[in-house]
Amino acid sequence: MPIGLPAVPELMPVSGIELGSANGNISKAEKDDIALIRCAPGTITSAVFTRNRFCAAPVTVAREHLRRASTQALVVNSGNANAGTGKAGILAAETICELAAAGLGIPADSVLPFSTGVIGEQLPVAGFEQSLPRCIESMSNDNWLAAARAIMTTDLVPKGLSRRFELDGATVTLTGIVKGSGMIRPDMATMLGFVATDAVVGQAVLDQMLRQSVETSFNRVTVDGDTSTNDACVLMATGRTETPIIDDPDDPHCAVFSSVLNELMSRLAQSLIRDGEGATKFVTIDVTGADNERNAGEIAFTVAHSPLVKTALYASDPNWGRILAAVGRARVAQVDTNQVSLTINGTRVLENGEPSPTYTEQAGQEAMAPAEIRIRINLGSGTGKFTVWTSDLSYDYVRINAEYRS
Amino acid sequence: MPIGLPAVPELMPVSGIELGSANGNISKAEKDDIALIRCAPGTITSAVFTRNRFCAAPVTVAREHLRRASTQALVVNSGNANAGTGKAGILAAETICELAAAGLGIPADSVLPFSTGVIGEQLPVAGFEQSLPRCIESMSNDNWLAAARAIMTTDLVPKGLSRRFELDGATVTLTGIVKGSGMIRPDMATMLGFVATDAVVGQAVLDQMLRQSVETSFNRVTVDGDTSTNDACVLMATGRTETPIIDDPDDPHCAVFSSVLNELMSRLAQSLIRDGEGATKFVTIDVTGADNERNAGEIAFTVAHSPLVKTALYASDPNWGRILAAVGRARVAQVDTNQVSLTINGTRVLENGEPSPTYTEQAGQEAMAPAEIRIRINLGSGTGKFTVWTSDLSYDYVRINAEYRS
Repeated sequence: MPIGLPAVPELMPVSGIELGSANGNISKAEKDDIALIRCAPGTITSAVFTRNRFCAAPVTVAREHLRRASTQALVVNSGNANAGTGKAGILAAETICELAAAGLGIPADSVLPFSTGVIGEQLPVAGFEQSLPRCIESMSNDNWLAAARAIMTTDLVPKGLSRRFELDGATVTLTGIVKGSGMIRPDMATMLGFVATDAVVGQAVLDQMLRQSVETSFNRVTVDGDTSTNDACVLMATGRTETPIIDDPDDPHCAVFSSVLNELMSRLAQSLIRDGEGATKFVTIDVTGADNERNAGEIAFTVAHSPLVKTALYASDPNWGRILAAVGRARVAQVDTNQVSLTINGTRVLENGEPSPTYTEQAGQEAMAPAEIRIRINLGSGTGKFTVWTSDLSYDYVRINAEYRS
Repeated sequence: MPIGLPAVPELMPVSGIELGSANGNISKAEKDDIALIRCAPGTITSAVFTRNRFCAAPVTVAREHLRRASTQALVVNSGNANAGTGKAGILAAETICELAAAGLGIPADSVLPFSTGVIGEQLPVAGFEQSLPRCIESMSNDNWLAAARAIMTTDLVPKGLSRRFELDGATVTLTGIVKGSGMIRPDMATMLGFVATDAVVGQAVLDQMLRQSVETSFNRVTVDGDTSTNDACVLMATGRTETPIIDDPDDPHCAVFSSVLNELMSRLAQSLIRDGEGATKFVTIDVTGADNERNAGEIAFTVAHSPLVKTALYASDPNWGRILAAVGRARVAQVDTNQVSLTINGTRVLENGEPSPTYTEQAGQEAMAPAEIRIRINLGSGTGKFTVWTSDLSYDYVRINAEYRS
């Protein structure tokens, strides 16, 4: 069960966005596995993609289509990543764009393709040919939840969130859906995220807000340190509200919109971890007192990726020496171990490099018992800080990933 | 069961080295957990230690004693790492050296302490006080196997190896024992290694040979990417043979000795992986064609540490896309994905970035079935290469590390 993740709340329609889904038998799961998202003409679209060098065919094609044309539709499948598929994979991604475009009566390069699932198998294009017409028939602006289900792979639950707020007297809606639960680490998680708003936003500001927001949300979660070949996060602004255009980063409207966007993106990112593969703990790792933000992040991720820290978390075992060992091997120029302090869920474990006199094994066990754990590491040196959200390493993580293709 | 690891062979005595062991109730295991190694006066000793900044108290003390005096004895315990123990831990490490020194009638700073086991608990010095006399009584030059058993923690089997060879008409013996099976990665593994020879070797050359040898053995194995706070590898040369002194790196005797030492150290390092925590596969990752050795190593370790690659190995699942994904996220300046080729146990999977036309799922499954797997990644760029030995990620790894302290 996901950790502390309430059932997906009502996902509010965004004016100018319609969604449809169908089962194209791309995945082995008995559920819809193709989603089609249409955005009204005039929509401004921004996207960030995986930094994995072996990026999937749809990532290559989506980048190219974004350069060439305004986006009018997104076609997304789960069950097959269309990655490691060579030139045939590129052709398949182009073909599904053409199929979607023909059905919608729009140019092929106004369609962006997204795939998630098994790497190294050719995408079965026939499934799209058969199912895209049903996708199109089912389209409505109230279909966000169905689309969230269609993009799931090992996710246990659909994940999405909406926010509605006032901006200069007009009502703005932000709705986003995400998938992902393993092969999760920046940059970015094995995730697809699709977020839309009806606000009127200029391209440059939209790009900037998306990048900034991803940096403090999806780039701060990690399940296993593995970066997917297919990650993508798309932000669409349909411009259907009556608000003035947000095209100046110094405009107060921009700050309001950004803060809502950042909060939504952070929660969506955290929902990936709460539904992390085999996760039994939701863990926040706060590093403070580092020489700079980069070093704080390096240490936070080293702790978050340590299999020994993760198995201790799974066991609710206050084996805090493993946290120190991870801090001590992180790739940073220097750590003064005599300045390091550590707390686990508020229980002081280490103060300035010495075991805390108030610490007891029982206090440690109580601190490690809850499903939500906050590890605070203060390096006692500078002002650099960084927060990472992660999960533990359980039998179920191994089972899920050992059985994934079978 | 360890993978392809024959029962420990006869460990040949090394003239000038005596070993004893006893159960000091330091660990919960019903076995000896203290070993004492005495080396004859005149022995030249070289040692390398963990690069973890949170190094354990015995590491700090051993480094200091090495600077101050010639080594005449090593006192080693399993069950408690004496790490994260602050000033009290330093005092405990000094005290056990004094206890051993008093028993043997030698100066305290001629004793080096080594500990391995749980981090963050104070070392029970009383156990040494009671048991060191029994260690000393049991000392003999034929006790290598008993010492190998005494230093075990989660190791399933004792690990050691001997080599005997001719050098300039005299017979030289090299015998080494190691422990370690988790928290294993360079630099170095969670390991203790004690290797002795009766050859006559100068200090500078001994240091150089040890460092070089560790670089291509213990620094190339990884179980989980976690670096211990306690790693140490010691090489002792008692000088009891009739060979000429080895003190010139350009001397052919040095080359002969080095090659035997390197072979022994590589096999000892590999034995850690073959007995890796929960390991069901022994995996060799060969990266070639990199721009330089550093990049080759970075890629090899990224693949070796990927939880997704490791769970696929556990499942014998030819999910080779996960290998590509790990290559693609490695921290190297550039990889031309169109030049990358991949084979698994000789089966061609990817050639110049394209799926191999001869590859089939069945061929992949057959390639992944054996307990010994060789993954070859050719980056098709330069001449840099690197080999890493690793294991898979199994239920048992999680069980062992979740239950470790209980």
